[in-house]
Amino acid sequence: MPLPLFRLMPPSTLGSYAMSGCLLTRHNHTPPRPPNRGTVKRSLQVAGLVGALAATWRMYRYLQVQMIKLQSRKKDIQILQFPTDPVRRNEWISYYTFRSMIKEIIDYAFEYTGGVVTASSESSPDSWGQVRPDLPWYTLADISSHSCKENRIWVTFSQGVYDITEFVEQHPGGEKILMAAGGSLEPFWLLYALHSYVSGNLSAEDVSEVMANMEDPYACEPRRHPALKPSSKKPFNAEPPLPVLVDSFITPAELFYVRNHLPVPEVDPATYELEVDGVGSETFIFSLDDIKKFPKHTITATIQCAGNRRGEMSKVKPVKGLNWGAAAIGNATWSGARLRDILLATGLRDNQPGVTHVQFEGLDSDPANVSYGASISVEKAMDPCGDTILAYEMNGNPLLRDHGFPIRVVVPGIVGARSVKWLARIIVSGEESCSHWQQNDYKGFCPSVDWNTVDFTKSPAIQELPVTSAICDPIDGSSVELHDGNLMVKGYAWSGGGQKIVRVDVTADGGDTWHVAELIAQEGNIRPGRHWAWTLWRADIPVLAGSSQVLILLLVFVCENYVEVWAKAIDSSYNTQPESFRNIWNLRGVLSNAYHRVKVNIVQS
Amino acid sequence: MPLPLFRLMPPSTLGSYAMSGCLLTRHNHTPPRPPNRGTVKRSLQVAGLVGALAATWRMYRYLQVQMIKLQSRKKDIQILQFPTDPVRRNEWISYYTFRSMIKEIIDYAFEYTGGVVTASSESSPDSWGQVRPDLPWYTLADISSHSCKENRIWVTFSQGVYDITEFVEQHPGGEKILMAAGGSLEPFWLLYALHSYVSGNLSAEDVSEVMANMEDPYACEPRRHPALKPSSKKPFNAEPPLPVLVDSFITPAELFYVRNHLPVPEVDPATYELEVDGVGSETFIFSLDDIKKFPKHTITATIQCAGNRRGEMSKVKPVKGLNWGAAAIGNATWSGARLRDILLATGLRDNQPGVTHVQFEGLDSDPANVSYGASISVEKAMDPCGDTILAYEMNGNPLLRDHGFPIRVVVPGIVGARSVKWLARIIVSGEESCSHWQQNDYKGFCPSVDWNTVDFTKSPAIQELPVTSAICDPIDGSSVELHDGNLMVKGYAWSGGGQKIVRVDVTADGGDTWHVAELIAQEGNIRPGRHWAWTLWRADIPVLAGSSQVLILLLVFVCENYVEVWAKAIDSSYNTQPESFRNIWNLRGVLSNAYHRVKVNIVQS
Repeated sequence: MPLPLFRLMPPSTLGSYAMSGCLLTRHNHTPPRPPNRGTVKRSLQVAGLVGALAATWRMYRYLQVQMIKLQSRKKDIQILQFPTDPVRRNEWISYYTFRSMIKEIIDYAFEYTGGVVTASSESSPDSWGQVRPDLPWYTLADISSHSCKENRIWVTFSQGVYDITEFVEQHPGGEKILMAAGGSLEPFWLLYALHSYVSGNLSAEDVSEVMANMEDPYACEPRRHPALKPSSKKPFNAEPPLPVLVDSFITPAELFYVRNHLPVPEVDPATYELEVDGVGSETFIFSLDDIKKFPKHTITATIQCAGNRRGEMSKVKPVKGLNWGAAAIGNATWSGARLRDILLATGLRDNQPGVTHVQFEGLDSDPANVSYGASISVEKAMDPCGDTILAYEMNGNPLLRDHGFPIRVVVPGIVGARSVKWLARIIVSGEESCSHWQQNDYKGFCPSVDWNTVDFTKSPAIQELPVTSAICDPIDGSSVELHDGNLMVKGYAWSGGGQKIVRVDVTADGGDTWHVAELIAQEGNIRPGRHWAWTLWRADIPVLAGSSQVLILLLVFVCENYVEVWAKAIDSSYNTQPESFRNIWNLRGVLSNAYHRVKVNIVQS
Repeated sequence: MPLPLFRLMPPSTLGSYAMSGCLLTRHNHTPPRPPNRGTVKRSLQVAGLVGALAATWRMYRYLQVQMIKLQSRKKDIQILQFPTDPVRRNEWISYYTFRSMIKEIIDYAFEYTGGVVTASSESSPDSWGQVRPDLPWYTLADISSHSCKENRIWVTFSQGVYDITEFVEQHPGGEKILMAAGGSLEPFWLLYALHSYVSGNLSAEDVSEVMANMEDPYACEPRRHPALKPSSKKPFNAEPPLPVLVDSFITPAELFYVRNHLPVPEVDPATYELEVDGVGSETFIFSLDDIKKFPKHTITATIQCAGNRRGEMSKVKPVKGLNWGAAAIGNATWSGARLRDILLATGLRDNQPGVTHVQFEGLDSDPANVSYGASISVEKAMDPCGDTILAYEMNGNPLLRDHGFPIRVVVPGIVGARSVKWLARIIVSGEESCSHWQQNDYKGFCPSVDWNTVDFTKSPAIQELPVTSAICDPIDGSSVELHDGNLMVKGYAWSGGGQKIVRVDVTADGGDTWHVAELIAQEGNIRPGRHWAWTLWRADIPVLAGSSQVLILLLVFVCENYVEVWAKAIDSSYNTQPESFRNIWNLRGVLSNAYHRVKVNIVQS
């Protein structure tokens, strides 16, 4: 059995990991420069980073479970203090390859444990990756000859050589780790706590080679608008300031939220090829020009991240995921070829037996060539009114790199995760995409399901999103002046599945009085079920500066007058938002669509 | 200005109305036999009941406004006590033509005023319908010559003759009352309070004629299963006991809730004809056999009344409508011809310009030949996956009369009000149905909209219904035994628009712990968007018989242990139910889909 996480990070160990130049540096240390930034990519496989990256997601999930277990096992542990200042905590974490992921994990642990992450006193982590003179020495060549069960499966971590054959057999996710067989799981191996499997030492020269072959896969990211606020930089994930959203019905491309799962690929449009498989035995290849020859179809569609407004849900209880505000959503016009037309051209028929899903793969991939992937139902893909397109334009211009240049699927009405960017491949299938993001992420769960009990096979992948809305102006915590006793509130509302927003209700008195907002921007002349675009609204609502809302701080004689404003939207199915996050809480913090509530300070004009 | 309702029912007046043999009888009186049950229908128009019925709905809405006003104007009123026992109250109300409607109004008033309906002291209601010797005498012939603005508009009530020209001009709904012009508004005139317009007397013989020509339009209703609990008998509206619903995935036809708006028509299948208009200039006629020649299409679909669970919402604040429990919903197999096939046969094409709606009219109509009517979008009607059918079978048998024999539209995923029974006519159109039920009923509103501010043009007609669920067993208020500390809870869940139920969560501790219910009956192998049938579920949930839940009544040493169980469903769009009724309350009590909550008494086994 692997040891839980808390055995992995005692203070004394952190120094040794800093030495290996990868993930963690000792508290108070300046992050070290990476050993060799410019080294070429090709020898990465020799170093085995390949496998490390491939196994990352499994480890990630495993970690989540361990995090939950932390609290219940405090009796035999030492205390390790994380910096309470988030800036310091970020410095403390090295900036290497998967910095953002590790940062997220540690942030999570920090939230979960109130800043105290614990380390077991019974572990002997100093030995991890260290030379064990009692064990034999191997070269990378030796190790690479142990890559299957028959020869035993070896991997390296720092100077340690580990036999993980049993681990692979014992763990449901073990097969993925096989991708690292015969190589190194550096730098993530430490997270798996497999020191009991130690079987030898790696020669010092080979360790240098491993470390020398690391380079930053995020070195070629595009420039971004400075107003975008990143929730993670590598991969880049960012949202614009909330009030920007209500400035215009169409969100400017450079201010549209960015959700990247991996580094942004560099694609040459001249050589770009889209592969379509699964219709009969033939593989079809389309160049960018081929795609542009199909009738150009333009839609206005909102794309929203499944985790939009996660930050609000996480206030109830921590969740795992990027800490999105309410601006991980945007509305744009998208032009491209209908997916239906492309698929018809490859010979797919309506209601073709055995075909139930259309899978997409992106050109964004990890060093193991595992691409971002997702799928939608064939009904959505083929629906003549479904408006799924392979977009090559956003707001009339070629896509920005961050938004999928040169081709992005736009699946309107559906969670953004299925609108695969940098589209490389379409697979017509009887199965959903087997990708992590379809199978083990982007699903909803009962509020009582935690990382110990979660079973991702039990929930359907999110496709259509539920109705939501947000107040964009004023923002939470701001000070506002009333005009004639009224407060002007503006926001957006949207619902998945092409549902129209039929009403937005706003209250400033906890629901005693609801005011119907004016829908100031909504696509007109749209047939039922094709309302892909959001609705912008405003409400000029009377605010009672009543005594109940006045907090007089006696000592400083400061009079503060806070008002909490709530908004809820109703769509054409008359579905509405749940009132609070408590009963829709889920461990991934997705589908966070409870009433949006902002508290503002009313100042005297 | 018309006087509000409270002027209309002082005790002294009720006797005079009882004399007229129609609506109300004096408290404690046995309801009188109708004066002449067997009289032929044709002379109804002479009596002017025609217009009375046509104007009913306008009056009804007007009444709603007045009801709301009751509370604020108590200072100048007398008190009129209604019987507190509902059985007695029902007796007290006569059973004549629109008894159920009047009953509903009085029930409403009763709820709203806590059993005290008020009457103005300043009114002189004794004079309504009475002879005024100072005014001239007219015959019915005289009155019928005053039927337009130019000649003044006259109507009668009992022996009074009223000039309503000004009333018609002053009221937005006045044009409808014109249908009664030149006749009598008996017996609903009293509700309009137009005594200030009195202009003469009707001869005594003519009054006899008016009364003689009334017969019970509900005389030929079908026999019903005794287990159905009526919320109104005329028209018949009833639901089965809630636990019946979870006995079987398919609800037996005779236990399926009945929602009739008008008397059940008697239809001879041999002469039945369906008319289809609006596709080009031709009218198409289909016999029952013609319809059966189209491919027979069978679907399993749940039909739910828009007012299902209204009773729960009305506990927050009274609403207008039948007091439905949670069983105004049922699930059946329906077989018939696809509406799409019928429409294609008449020449309608997909995306035909100018066509946006498909209207339906039933054979059920009032004496003014105003039929029940509704419409759906042409997209739903023509969608090859929309499964809208003209059903002639329910659960493998010909439809019961209460369910639309011989032909009922079944529009799966859509509010029951659009599944028009006793289908007489289909109109392909660029407009929605102009019927009351499409335009001025079955719409949702903001909780702060009341009958003074409501504008029915501002809300869309309900089509797809939001996600809902209910606990059917145990029922609210029952006593249950635990088994191994667990309580078995069963219920249904459903969502409109073909959304699948993906999860039902149940809690017995106010949401601290949610349990995922087992979905025990759900249609398998259904493609996305076509989950028309409900899902039955059960949850065996641990119930803590904790001290906080034990109420010890000290004096009688009775130990009662109440537990409140909540259920909420989540559909495939991950929409879920709102928590409570407070913020979804609407004046019509529709869309009542908040968490279902039942309180049960845990008894020791």
